[in-house]
Amino acid sequence: MVAFTKMHGLGNDFVVLDARALPLALTAEAVRHIGDRRRGVGFDQLLVMEPAGNDGADLFMRIYNPDGSESGACGNGTRCVAALCMVENDAERITIETRRGLLAARRLDDGRVAVDMGEALTDWAAVPLAEERDTLSLNGVASGPLADPVAVGMGNPHCVFFVADAEAVDLTTHGSEIEHHPLFPERTNVEVASLIGPDRLRLRVWERGAGITFACGSGACATAVAAIRRGLTGRRVALDLDGGRLDIEWRETDGHVLMTGPVATSFTGEIDL
Amino acid sequence: MVAFTKMHGLGNDFVVLDARALPLALTAEAVRHIGDRRRGVGFDQLLVMEPAGNDGADLFMRIYNPDGSESGACGNGTRCVAALCMVENDAERITIETRRGLLAARRLDDGRVAVDMGEALTDWAAVPLAEERDTLSLNGVASGPLADPVAVGMGNPHCVFFVADAEAVDLTTHGSEIEHHPLFPERTNVEVASLIGPDRLRLRVWERGAGITFACGSGACATAVAAIRRGLTGRRVALDLDGGRLDIEWRETDGHVLMTGPVATSFTGEIDL
Repeated sequence: MVAFTKMHGLGNDFVVLDARALPLALTAEAVRHIGDRRRGVGFDQLLVMEPAGNDGADLFMRIYNPDGSESGACGNGTRCVAALCMVENDAERITIETRRGLLAARRLDDGRVAVDMGEALTDWAAVPLAEERDTLSLNGVASGPLADPVAVGMGNPHCVFFVADAEAVDLTTHGSEIEHHPLFPERTNVEVASLIGPDRLRLRVWERGAGITFACGSGACATAVAAIRRGLTGRRVALDLDGGRLDIEWRETDGHVLMTGPVATSFTGEIDL
Repeated sequence: MVAFTKMHGLGNDFVVLDARALPLALTAEAVRHIGDRRRGVGFDQLLVMEPAGNDGADLFMRIYNPDGSESGACGNGTRCVAALCMVENDAERITIETRRGLLAARRLDDGRVAVDMGEALTDWAAVPLAEERDTLSLNGVASGPLADPVAVGMGNPHCVFFVADAEAVDLTTHGSEIEHHPLFPERTNVEVASLIGPDRLRLRVWERGAGITFACGSGACATAVAAIRRGLTGRRVALDLDGGRLDIEWRETDGHVLMTGPVATSFTGEIDL
């Protein structure tokens, strides 16, 4: 029997396994079994805590997709594992090593967790785009109210549209079209956002390869960066996603993006593998 | 913290709670929370074991839908709870009381569980149909290869079509149309089945109000009864559903339908309510 914790951040859900003391030999088949929402447990990502390989990190986090493949990073998942470990160690800060590098996280007094999502990339080649363009005014991707998006790289590409009413956009149709636009050689995530108050945005996200999702962390970061670059908000932005609220800060000193949001433990369990 | 067992029969999944020793006060809100596949646990039905009110029963089983409402009966769920209790008591037989009456179950040597699903109803008024009809040849419901179905009542209405190739039927289109045909005053479940061997059928089910499902127990019972009435099979029929295999016997002595199939425990857990 293997013990696990089921957690979520804004409904983006995770099974967390602890392989720090005892190594876990997980086959792709076992990952797929745990990921089955009817015959296993079910998750968006499986997160395995392992001993850190880097002196500066408290632990290594291995990330699996439901199909058994490994993934590089996951903002909401980082917040969940960070919360679990910080509560366990009664710590306020933690550094988590992943295949994409070190991620620093901090626990707030209200229980929310902030994670450093790294630097926002605003250069066209870094997003990446297929040709040299002004990332702040990317015309020619779509038309009408979607005429003039902003491109942002957060390790993955984002194309952010500011519109009068994000709810009114047919995101299923436009998301799929824009994801596959030739300007994006690695395809793109698609964000539609409306200003609904001072430094506050309503945000809907079309996730590359997944369709409309309700809690895309990197999409919230990219949208905040785009809004700040456009002068729509200050450097701290609140975003209302379908799954709940995320607070984003684009730090002036180093250009890093900090994402703050709630985490929750859904239940704990034991499964036979 | 409340302990639970997550089980499934052919992927039809259940959270089982034990309120036999200590009563559980479950609000509809708590049921909906447990039923949330991302923020709770997730289930097709929540099954609560309670003390029996009837002398002939070993326990009472209360059944909740994910929307918090109570349900009358559930064949795959009965098999799961029966398995759990028979293993616990090292018993081979058990009687479970539900709001629809007593259900007898039996454990086989291979671990599968058989449950008595009650009498099959072949009278038009009992199915129910809207007008007097021959339930064995129900023309006028659909056309082409779906010209001549059989109607069966299993506590809920079923309209069973025998076709050359069940895979070739556009069940999404036809299922929805037939479900709402005026001949069925309580709407109907829709089954398409093909004979693929002696006493063996391939079965696909459109479940009333739910669409295509992969493990409808009453649909398997109704289809076996229809096949037996049509003379296509003997009184014991194996059915290959999307979720796995169920074995059905239509007992000659009392007209009851016995459903046999696998059960599995996915994991055990504890949740804060």
